[in-house]
Amino acid sequence: MIPEDHPRYEPLRRRELIADGATAGLVAMEGVAAHGRGETFDYLIGEVTIPSAALAEEMAAAVICTAERPVISVNGNTAALAASAIGDLQRASGAAVEVNLFHRTEKRMQLITSRLEDAGVNVLSGTAERFIPLSHDRALCLPDGIFAADVVLVPLEDGDRCEALKKMGKTVITIDLNPLSRTSQTADVTIVDELTRALPQITEFCREGNRDRFTTLLREYDNKEILRDALITIKNVIDRALD
Amino acid sequence: MIPEDHPRYEPLRRRELIADGATAGLVAMEGVAAHGRGETFDYLIGEVTIPSAALAEEMAAAVICTAERPVISVNGNTAALAASAIGDLQRASGAAVEVNLFHRTEKRMQLITSRLEDAGVNVLSGTAERFIPLSHDRALCLPDGIFAADVVLVPLEDGDRCEALKKMGKTVITIDLNPLSRTSQTADVTIVDELTRALPQITEFCREGNRDRFTTLLREYDNKEILRDALITIKNVIDRALD
Repeated sequence: MIPEDHPRYEPLRRRELIADGATAGLVAMEGVAAHGRGETFDYLIGEVTIPSAALAEEMAAAVICTAERPVISVNGNTAALAASAIGDLQRASGAAVEVNLFHRTEKRMQLITSRLEDAGVNVLSGTAERFIPLSHDRALCLPDGIFAADVVLVPLEDGDRCEALKKMGKTVITIDLNPLSRTSQTADVTIVDELTRALPQITEFCREGNRDRFTTLLREYDNKEILRDALITIKNVIDRALD
Repeated sequence: MIPEDHPRYEPLRRRELIADGATAGLVAMEGVAAHGRGETFDYLIGEVTIPSAALAEEMAAAVICTAERPVISVNGNTAALAASAIGDLQRASGAAVEVNLFHRTEKRMQLITSRLEDAGVNVLSGTAERFIPLSHDRALCLPDGIFAADVVLVPLEDGDRCEALKKMGKTVITIDLNPLSRTSQTADVTIVDELTRALPQITEFCREGNRDRFTTLLREYDNKEILRDALITIKNVIDRALD
């Protein structure tokens, strides 16, 4: 257990949640390494929600709250880190929640579903079919979930699947700390922020439900500028270290 | 298994070795996340040995080959990724090899020792004592190993221990992909390169054993310049993405 007054409590606590999730079988070993990759980028943006990320979070709320059939796609890392934050966002936005895994096994599907349900999330059930244009189990999703969705929020997604969802005509929102990743470059809305900081912000913007603001954002939002700002933030960190 | 003709065979293979190492109990879960953090920095330096890292590798050979009692400190990640490369370096340099773990358990000590011995490494044995100025098991090392060493090569070390080794008067060489880490900033020689690329290079420079070149390097080497060059490399990657 990490003491709450430790100066690095938050990131160490998250690492512990991921490690415990892996031990429990929720998180794939690949997910532990992916968490580490994210930690480096979080460190490079200063472990804070940068203003451009806050804007992307508001845009995410605008897109989700004006969607017909929004779906939140949840994987092992998301369930391990943020099950109750997913529940809060679901209640604030009315979005459906589907468990969708890259390293899919029935056991992991069940463990993650239970973790989410224990945290008060209403999880979609049904028989997954090969709807996503990808090979093997990575093609699976629910007919009443991601397949029928107009908007999909996919935190911590891999690049292939993000592209495949775009090809299916979905509006894709992602939460990805790497502004250079294929997911970040492909998504319609890229939130370059740490998951547990980002989700409550999106929820808060959904609760506020400022329709005029949503309309303005949907008209003016430019994801390329958002990505550019994240890269400039990293560049500035490197520049300061070089001084 | 990753097919050998996969364009990203090397990094994916390393990730698999770390994941398998964790499943087998060699690698701590923290080590899996740490590997992911390194992957991001490797990606930011272009997944190649940059020229300044090659120079640091040559300097590492100079320091190890001219040392009285050089010791290579090996942890779970190093054993999982590079057991036979450690053996090659040991044979080329005459350095002792000590297993030294941050997350120390008897079981992991034994697993890592066996892995190294199976790869032909001569592993120091004995009763560890609290010699390193740190709390708990992190203070442990061997009286005839790290405690008595003048030079310690610690790949993938944590910042606290690197500082503690410096306080003990050791010359510290580290292999760390994060040029901003406390370890990188504290070590005498910082190799900002991926472990399995770095070790064979150091071994090769030890084999060449160019004493004149070693003498020049020992006089002229500037670790601050090495760190600066790694940061500039990362900055250039970001700059190109911003173009």
